[in-house]
Amino acid sequence: MKALQEKILTDGIVLSDTVLKVDTFLNHQMDPVLMKEIGEEFGKRFEKEGITKILTIESSGIAPAIMAALKLNVEMVFARKRKSLTLQDGLITSKVYSFTKKEENEISVAEKFILPIDRVLIIDDFLANGQAALGLMDIVKKAGADVGGVGIVIEKAFQDGGRLVRETGVKVESLARIESLKGGQVTFVPTKQGVTS
Amino acid sequence: MKALQEKILTDGIVLSDTVLKVDTFLNHQMDPVLMKEIGEEFGKRFEKEGITKILTIESSGIAPAIMAALKLNVEMVFARKRKSLTLQDGLITSKVYSFTKKEENEISVAEKFILPIDRVLIIDDFLANGQAALGLMDIVKKAGADVGGVGIVIEKAFQDGGRLVRETGVKVESLARIESLKGGQVTFVPTKQGVTS
Repeated sequence: MKALQEKILTDGIVLSDTVLKVDTFLNHQMDPVLMKEIGEEFGKRFEKEGITKILTIESSGIAPAIMAALKLNVEMVFARKRKSLTLQDGLITSKVYSFTKKEENEISVAEKFILPIDRVLIIDDFLANGQAALGLMDIVKKAGADVGGVGIVIEKAFQDGGRLVRETGVKVESLARIESLKGGQVTFVPTKQGVTS
Repeated sequence: MKALQEKILTDGIVLSDTVLKVDTFLNHQMDPVLMKEIGEEFGKRFEKEGITKILTIESSGIAPAIMAALKLNVEMVFARKRKSLTLQDGLITSKVYSFTKKEENEISVAEKFILPIDRVLIIDDFLANGQAALGLMDIVKKAGADVGGVGIVIEKAFQDGGRLVRETGVKVESLARIESLKGGQVTFVPTKQGVTS
């Protein structure tokens, strides 16, 4: 997705060979116009998948997910990272290890929001080690529903997550795929001629 | 706001005289069409306030805030409830006590995202005891910026928050104001004739 790639190049900050900071437009401050375009792009890429619900995880997944939900005309649910007082019974949970924060979180979704008839599109801001996406897929599976796809804003293609998630057979669409951050430079995975990424 | 009041009446669950559960459309599952309407309503109510930025707090504030940001054509920032590894320096922080969760959180925003020239619209899903809104106002003040208004999706008008925030002199717009949850019934604050709420 060209607008996103350009935004990454102009506003992203490479902090190390593995860390890209995009807090000016994606995961702290958010650009609403770009979010809308991202939602529409997810909508386009998954419009034939019979999606009935979108699942994401708090917090940075929520804005792209609500925009995709608007485009696909389905409701969106976000998984919480820990239990809150008003949400204790009837939860589906999974454990997710965050390599960035070096901690394990329990993520949870109220079971009433994902039904066996659902075909769920999982949306997240980053795909790196794949733990969040796999945890969300685990929740969908425990609900007895189908995963209709995984939509990622930025994939760090040099880490394991993309391979791990694609190996499950699910359709993964990443709007920007980063091949390398070496030397402080963002390099995108080359796309096939005629194929927009 | 009529569509919101109707949604509260049909889908909200009164758990006690003080707790209204709206997790089917606002703070766990989200209805994207309603979120868009909420964003547009905030836009309408604050369009003359010279807003340059929207500030909310993770997680349930993000969807209404991004929709309002889209309508007002400004960027949105969400305050985090605890520090993450990639966001430690250059933070503005405030302490917020949550009566629901019975815990104090430090909320933080990167200082580069709120500048003294900014006129900030604060958006949140609920206004009850007012601690989150006051914490966000404190952050704006510490940044040297102005609060241009506070936009709330659901105000529990029988709790102290509305009074505390309005006493500061700031313009508060709540899209649904609940007078009482007694007897398992949602009663809205009566609106002046000819004034939509």
